[in-house]
Amino acid sequence: MTALEESGRRAQAASRELARASTADKDAALRAGADLLVQRTDDVLAANQVDVARAVESGTTATVVDRLRLDAGRVEAMAAGLRQVAALADPVGEVVDGWTRPNGLRITRVRVPLGVIGIIYENRPNVTSDAAGLCLKSGNAAFLRGSSAAISSNIAIAAVLREGFAKAGLPEDSLVLVEDTSRESATRFMQLRGLIDCLVPRGGASLIAAILEHATVPYVIDGDGNCHVYVDAAADLDMALAIVVNAKTQRPSVCNAAESLLVHEAVAAEFLPRAAAALDGVSLVGDSTARALVAGMGEATDDDFATEFLDLKMSVAVVPSLDAAMDHIRRFGSGHTEAIVTGNLSAARRFTTEVDAAAVVVNASTRFTDGEQFGFGAEIGISTQKLHARGPMGLRELTTVKYVVEGDGQVRG
Amino acid sequence: MTALEESGRRAQAASRELARASTADKDAALRAGADLLVQRTDDVLAANQVDVARAVESGTTATVVDRLRLDAGRVEAMAAGLRQVAALADPVGEVVDGWTRPNGLRITRVRVPLGVIGIIYENRPNVTSDAAGLCLKSGNAAFLRGSSAAISSNIAIAAVLREGFAKAGLPEDSLVLVEDTSRESATRFMQLRGLIDCLVPRGGASLIAAILEHATVPYVIDGDGNCHVYVDAAADLDMALAIVVNAKTQRPSVCNAAESLLVHEAVAAEFLPRAAAALDGVSLVGDSTARALVAGMGEATDDDFATEFLDLKMSVAVVPSLDAAMDHIRRFGSGHTEAIVTGNLSAARRFTTEVDAAAVVVNASTRFTDGEQFGFGAEIGISTQKLHARGPMGLRELTTVKYVVEGDGQVRG
Repeated sequence: MTALEESGRRAQAASRELARASTADKDAALRAGADLLVQRTDDVLAANQVDVARAVESGTTATVVDRLRLDAGRVEAMAAGLRQVAALADPVGEVVDGWTRPNGLRITRVRVPLGVIGIIYENRPNVTSDAAGLCLKSGNAAFLRGSSAAISSNIAIAAVLREGFAKAGLPEDSLVLVEDTSRESATRFMQLRGLIDCLVPRGGASLIAAILEHATVPYVIDGDGNCHVYVDAAADLDMALAIVVNAKTQRPSVCNAAESLLVHEAVAAEFLPRAAAALDGVSLVGDSTARALVAGMGEATDDDFATEFLDLKMSVAVVPSLDAAMDHIRRFGSGHTEAIVTGNLSAARRFTTEVDAAAVVVNASTRFTDGEQFGFGAEIGISTQKLHARGPMGLRELTTVKYVVEGDGQVRG
Repeated sequence: MTALEESGRRAQAASRELARASTADKDAALRAGADLLVQRTDDVLAANQVDVARAVESGTTATVVDRLRLDAGRVEAMAAGLRQVAALADPVGEVVDGWTRPNGLRITRVRVPLGVIGIIYENRPNVTSDAAGLCLKSGNAAFLRGSSAAISSNIAIAAVLREGFAKAGLPEDSLVLVEDTSRESATRFMQLRGLIDCLVPRGGASLIAAILEHATVPYVIDGDGNCHVYVDAAADLDMALAIVVNAKTQRPSVCNAAESLLVHEAVAAEFLPRAAAALDGVSLVGDSTARALVAGMGEATDDDFATEFLDLKMSVAVVPSLDAAMDHIRRFGSGHTEAIVTGNLSAARRFTTEVDAAAVVVNASTRFTDGEQFGFGAEIGISTQKLHARGPMGLRELTTVKYVVEGDGQVRG
């Protein structure tokens, strides 16, 4: 057995205890982990300093170093996150549905933990704590494989949380961190079939590609968000302006930010110049009709329309109809979040019915597709796939179901 | 674009129409397909005769030839299956849940079709019709890749159904059959990412292995059923006898048949000789304790305990406790269906809570884990994985959900 398999087996053994743990015990463990994290802030910061120093020395960009860097406030925020998860409802044990068959068999579908959740993630040491908290609350063991850049921080955080969980009487292997951060270890990690019940990758396109190529364990893809806002002919243009500005600029670096603006030709001449002024500081690239309406707008290629900029840049197209807008979204969208601004009921209805995405939004910003904004309290990611989980993944999406069938001697005729 | 991709694109285009089709239109198409199938029975049987003749000529076993062979009754049964699916409730459009956020955003989670369902299957030409019916009713296009042995039958059945669906006004590409049955085509089929929304393999271990190695499209595994019946110390032994005999012998070749019998040592001396007599014709292999109680019982190796015999053969172990029974199931079970026979409430509760399987059964036969027996009306398979679908997969499991978010201008602060 390799060291990696041995780690997986420890997580699996812990997952069996966690599946039976009461909500009260899990919440106590989360709070114990949070308390210890704050208490050991100095240890965590010292370990983090090693990662930060190495990053700075190797010429890492300031943005990436900032993501990596912890301070007392960020450690406190991690602890607050754990306490917040402790306060959420426990999905385990929910009776999803149930019925009695004509032969008297009673069937219930009960929510149960998945088992071992594997997570491969990049930078941001807070994921270690956030992921461990969500997994534990949903009765799963967290089997974590972070990046080499954050390894020292991750080891320190994991050690503190493991100690905290154990203090509260839960297995310390509720959190198992893989310390080998080689690329080979990532590949072997995604092939631990029988040991990882669900893999949730948190990373960019190259990680997703590696998973599609190598993974043999079940996974949920947290993919790109090439999100559109379509301003319909019947839109309230003031509302549309506020929504477009919010969707594009409130936090451009995240997956639910808008990347592309589609405007119905009937309102383009009025709306686009206003939008361009309001989107001051955003680099706009557009089709020829849009460019004719906004001085200085660059030309958008198909590549631009297909790109998730994650930056203050936006592609713009003028469309002759709702159908053309939906065709554009079908061609370039990534199935994350698509919004329409309209006062027309039939347009809203067609858009929500016909556009194929995790979230379809009428008269609101794309930025709401988020576990917290949806009311889940926390999220492990946003699924852009259709199987198992679609959209923001909260605690419920970290569970599966089991059929419990109860009879009094029934046999099949 | 390859011919296979072109086929996938046709299925995808049809899936967009199907997603919007009314229940009435889908039901009419299913009935039109059923009617035409019966009407064209002679054509279907003539095509089937080509497959049967080729199979016989190449020395295929009688069992396999029988699975392949159609007659008027089997064609009528396929048509009846389509009519039965037409009579089931449509899962599409179900509002799974919904709520309003403090900012006034209204969020609903709505059931929608997956899109294109890919199915790779072996022999049994009736799968062509059954799968097409379930996919169409759930608003999905069926993209089917059957075996070379049944290709002539499959082409005939698909042609009739496509014509029937089109007569009723739905796209004929609601069913697209891949006519290239080479192994390479199967591999490329499971890599049509972006064209297949969910792949459901219907086949043996080598197909599953190929999918784990090659698939890049999302899939649901319909795996082995190494199902156990555990006869507890507190079991009603008459009930246990009826259940064991039914679970093992009522239809030994299917995945929900029992393969292994575990008996608590407190009742083994009384129960096992009775069970051995009642299981007349079943080859029993057991551990040393079981062998001491039943004359002539063969020795069971670990391989036997791990094997899904799908035949009149059963492994037997005597266990000292409920915990030992559950340990045995954890070690050898395949997560399909596990049954306990007991009158003890605590044992029943522990078994259903702690045993990790798609279905856990108390005091009934394992044979009930089945879409029809669960009341789903029909099934596309039985999932032994934990993501998306677990246990019998009916129409609901061929759908996904979409969040519909409705506001009146909300933006994120």
